[in-house]
Amino acid sequence: MKNNTRDKIIEAAAMLIAHKGLYGFSIAKAAWAAEVDANVAAEFFPSDTNLYEAVLENQFSLYASKMEAVFDDDNASPTEKVMRFAQAMCEVHQQAPHFFPIYYWELLNPSLYFQTIIEPRIRHVAYLSDNNIARGIQKGMFKHGLNPANMTMLLAGTLHYFFLATRLAPSLLPERGNDEEYFNQVLEVFMTGLKEQRASRILYQNRF
Amino acid sequence: MKNNTRDKIIEAAAMLIAHKGLYGFSIAKAAWAAEVDANVAAEFFPSDTNLYEAVLENQFSLYASKMEAVFDDDNASPTEKVMRFAQAMCEVHQQAPHFFPIYYWELLNPSLYFQTIIEPRIRHVAYLSDNNIARGIQKGMFKHGLNPANMTMLLAGTLHYFFLATRLAPSLLPERGNDEEYFNQVLEVFMTGLKEQRASRILYQNRF
Repeated sequence: MKNNTRDKIIEAAAMLIAHKGLYGFSIAKAAWAAEVDANVAAEFFPSDTNLYEAVLENQFSLYASKMEAVFDDDNASPTEKVMRFAQAMCEVHQQAPHFFPIYYWELLNPSLYFQTIIEPRIRHVAYLSDNNIARGIQKGMFKHGLNPANMTMLLAGTLHYFFLATRLAPSLLPERGNDEEYFNQVLEVFMTGLKEQRASRILYQNRF
Repeated sequence: MKNNTRDKIIEAAAMLIAHKGLYGFSIAKAAWAAEVDANVAAEFFPSDTNLYEAVLENQFSLYASKMEAVFDDDNASPTEKVMRFAQAMCEVHQQAPHFFPIYYWELLNPSLYFQTIIEPRIRHVAYLSDNNIARGIQKGMFKHGLNPANMTMLLAGTLHYFFLATRLAPSLLPERGNDEEYFNQVLEVFMTGLKEQRASRILYQNRF
């Protein structure tokens, strides 16, 4: 019950921060949104900063654990892991809809916790993805000469902007496919571009 | 001279807004940053809102005119235009380094001007790009079945996150290539994935 109340306050705070950033947020507002008595909320979180820290911890731990799990499976191929990476990002977006906005508020105007909570998680996930793509290149699955860090950035970027634009400003773009179509087509284009083009290479050799 | 002063105030305001969003911004601060007398600034801009509107107009007009020019050339192929689209986004980033942060502040927490200044420009550029990709598909250059809107989103997204992450948090990622390498590899992967794979198709047919 106690934990349940605490979680409710953190969830309500995450929603407020996603919508208005740090400026529009306080324990009192989070307590109100969570329908929790302000005095009870103050027992859990002595200050706004404590609550904000708890929200970041909660959001970025969830992100890190979901994304790190992608790279745990020793039996999955580099290709499989790239696809699971994209899939996991979509799951974060669905299960923690405030994550990407909160991350962007922090990117635009970093708090004290950017370095301690956010950077280590983002770096570690990027590091795992870079390594996976490097392994794919070593094995001859992915194109030689590609910088793995660039490929991680490319794939992450395609999903970030989509999540933000469609979630925050649904009427922004003239038209768009549904989430699943976007996700599938991004992976189709990305995986085709990432892979060694054996077919065209053979064809090219045959021409001479 | 007068216009020069006005431009200096707008540029200083853009810098302040990029760094701290609307909250950290006022005419007085912009005047101070532009080294312009506060009374002179107040003559150009009666209120903070006027100045903010002028900044958005300035930034998004520049964005729209640069991006729309990409699609003006009737002699360029759809492929050429996709490459110029990416190139133009990089030029916006270089020539107007506050553009992307300001756009993201507005995405996260839209002002009154989102609908009047931002949305029409973003929609129109997306519309032009969607049409160009649709033409490429019609001509058999790009893969059949791809939704042009998804491809515009994909390409824009790969550049947005790169600009933001590298500009705002240079130490965020474990390693990365330089801007030019990133840009070239994104285009390489994207264009390979976007194009009809004639080679592999022929090879596939030859197998049977």
